[in-house]
Amino acid sequence: MITPAARRRTAGARLPLRSGLEGLEPYGAPQLDVPVLLNVNENPYPPSQAVVEDIADAVAKAAGGLNRYPDRDFAELRAELAEYLRVESGVTLSAGEIWAANGSNEVMLHLLQAYGGPGRAALSFAPTYSMYPEYARDTITEWITGRREEDFTLDVTHALDQIAAHRPSVILLASPNNPTGTALPLETVESIADAARDGGPIGPDGAPTAAVVVVDEAYGEFRRDGTPSALTLLERHPHLAVARTMSKAFGMAGLRLGYLAAAPALIDHLRIVRLPYHLSAVTQAAALAALRHREELMQQVASLREERDGLVTWLRDRGLRVADSDANFVLFGVFPHRDQVWNGLLERGVLVREVGPAGWLRASVGTPEETAAFKAALEEVLGS
Amino acid sequence: MITPAARRRTAGARLPLRSGLEGLEPYGAPQLDVPVLLNVNENPYPPSQAVVEDIADAVAKAAGGLNRYPDRDFAELRAELAEYLRVESGVTLSAGEIWAANGSNEVMLHLLQAYGGPGRAALSFAPTYSMYPEYARDTITEWITGRREEDFTLDVTHALDQIAAHRPSVILLASPNNPTGTALPLETVESIADAARDGGPIGPDGAPTAAVVVVDEAYGEFRRDGTPSALTLLERHPHLAVARTMSKAFGMAGLRLGYLAAAPALIDHLRIVRLPYHLSAVTQAAALAALRHREELMQQVASLREERDGLVTWLRDRGLRVADSDANFVLFGVFPHRDQVWNGLLERGVLVREVGPAGWLRASVGTPEETAAFKAALEEVLGS
Repeated sequence: MITPAARRRTAGARLPLRSGLEGLEPYGAPQLDVPVLLNVNENPYPPSQAVVEDIADAVAKAAGGLNRYPDRDFAELRAELAEYLRVESGVTLSAGEIWAANGSNEVMLHLLQAYGGPGRAALSFAPTYSMYPEYARDTITEWITGRREEDFTLDVTHALDQIAAHRPSVILLASPNNPTGTALPLETVESIADAARDGGPIGPDGAPTAAVVVVDEAYGEFRRDGTPSALTLLERHPHLAVARTMSKAFGMAGLRLGYLAAAPALIDHLRIVRLPYHLSAVTQAAALAALRHREELMQQVASLREERDGLVTWLRDRGLRVADSDANFVLFGVFPHRDQVWNGLLERGVLVREVGPAGWLRASVGTPEETAAFKAALEEVLGS
Repeated sequence: MITPAARRRTAGARLPLRSGLEGLEPYGAPQLDVPVLLNVNENPYPPSQAVVEDIADAVAKAAGGLNRYPDRDFAELRAELAEYLRVESGVTLSAGEIWAANGSNEVMLHLLQAYGGPGRAALSFAPTYSMYPEYARDTITEWITGRREEDFTLDVTHALDQIAAHRPSVILLASPNNPTGTALPLETVESIADAARDGGPIGPDGAPTAAVVVVDEAYGEFRRDGTPSALTLLERHPHLAVARTMSKAFGMAGLRLGYLAAAPALIDHLRIVRLPYHLSAVTQAAALAALRHREELMQQVASLREERDGLVTWLRDRGLRVADSDANFVLFGVFPHRDQVWNGLLERGVLVREVGPAGWLRASVGTPEETAAFKAALEEVLGS
């Protein structure tokens, strides 16, 4: 992509890259051309023809007015996301309690831009989503990592100790957690939220502020029956935010639409740091079109959950350890040389992710055909 | 949008909003429902039916694969943007010298995230684009404002003095400038780039680094004949970046596609701080479709330039001061009470922008019909 002339032009500059970024590589899983892609927790089902046509129609309508800036506050999209959450989780929210951006990534950046910064800390518990430290890094926020237990659950006493020790301004809790699939019991979230209420930074008046507790439910729709959503806690905790995305359950990773539910005062803060017109008219139109098909898309979620439970059982039947999963992926192991297993699968056309604690691998739940290919490849690799 | 129940939920939290953001309002011009919108420098021409259809087709194709993440490096879009710049400005660049994001806003944020930060300063010259200080604020970068002359040109000696005094890591030069319309002579940009080469922060080894010089050519396509683009300077200045957008000349404000040309080493730094998959598959597809129609869209630019020149003459004929404009808007005045003129126009169905130095108003160049409505309204207001 880069010509020799272009390379020459680079010579002679000493660019003032900010301290802390030197030598870093851009974030991202390897993008390889492999038949069975189970590495980035995508939904394996492409949108149906009906969804595609509705998106195309909606975008065509929006395209007629693309010379104008989009609705800066995306009122209609926020209302429809609230309506979706009402149906999905039984929690009634108003449009003013919803925020959205180009992927959960940008939602999280807005949170850290509003509440992080120099002299402040963000707290999470490892192993967890590997982008979290990047949000902190990009907002000059100190990154504090507590730990999860050996079974990837969260010990409340340890969590409260970490809050007391660091007075973070933001606490990031992934539930279901990536890459482990572990959902947090609501009692755990609630204990943390209670401690966080005056567990944040000390304000200029000497009194404590709250730590904002972010429950990242990117994979929330895949939770097993009986696992509630933290959305039900919003009413009692004005410093709580619950993040969701259309990337996974809606099968819209390519659309980049992440969102969040929280109290209006919190969302007003995100509005200060958002870049104006951050959500394009095309994104708003396409997201609204996809939301109209939520019933169909939720049926896919149900079948992926079944597929996931079947895969967990199959792996355990083979004597492997598998973390309990409320997500659309499974973390399994433990392998003395996981890179060899990863490579063996890749040689057989199946790409999984080498991520999480030593010895574990993560595989997304694919179609039944993809699951079969994964199982066959794994049996070969482990048999050899 | 916000229910009483939602308001109640907010009570009792003391959210840890970062210092410096207290009491701020989100950025954005008033969005009023008025017949003639000349307030945010939009292109008045909606996309043609051919453009709309091509965008819809492209998005329909992309929608079929939306369950997958988009191309993280948007290789095809970068190549086509390079090709567009080659035709538009005569400067040949490779895809690896192009960067893009959701609007110039996000391109600028990436620049400040890579090169700004605590202990660093960004320098610009007022009056200029009112978002610049927000990029600095959001990246914890000190914001330094030099001045433009009374006729909105830039005094090189003053600029070099500011560089020497502050050692900024980023210098933002809008050309054509917003809200004044003033283009910078290439000699001015070049003098600043020469001084910036070792005019940036002192590195950890005690030696000076470069200041990154960003020439913001958001309105570049509207420049008058004989005004060159700073793209021609890229070859000799590896610490120079030239930003463009599809919002204005392409009439795609609703699409949110800003981009930048610079040396590959600089772009590698932006790749570190960008959020992965920041450009959706839908945005990439729609932008590529619009780029295929560049000839048609560039004819609109030519007619808008004529319209602009006619408007400048008309305003001057009426004894008003008008800044020389290389953009799709005109800054005119000077009114002892500009708010009264702004209100008088609004009462007559014409929305312009109250922005820039005291006494001046800014009006975007609209269609001939919109210009006629603006002229008629202004004559009434000034005659009364």
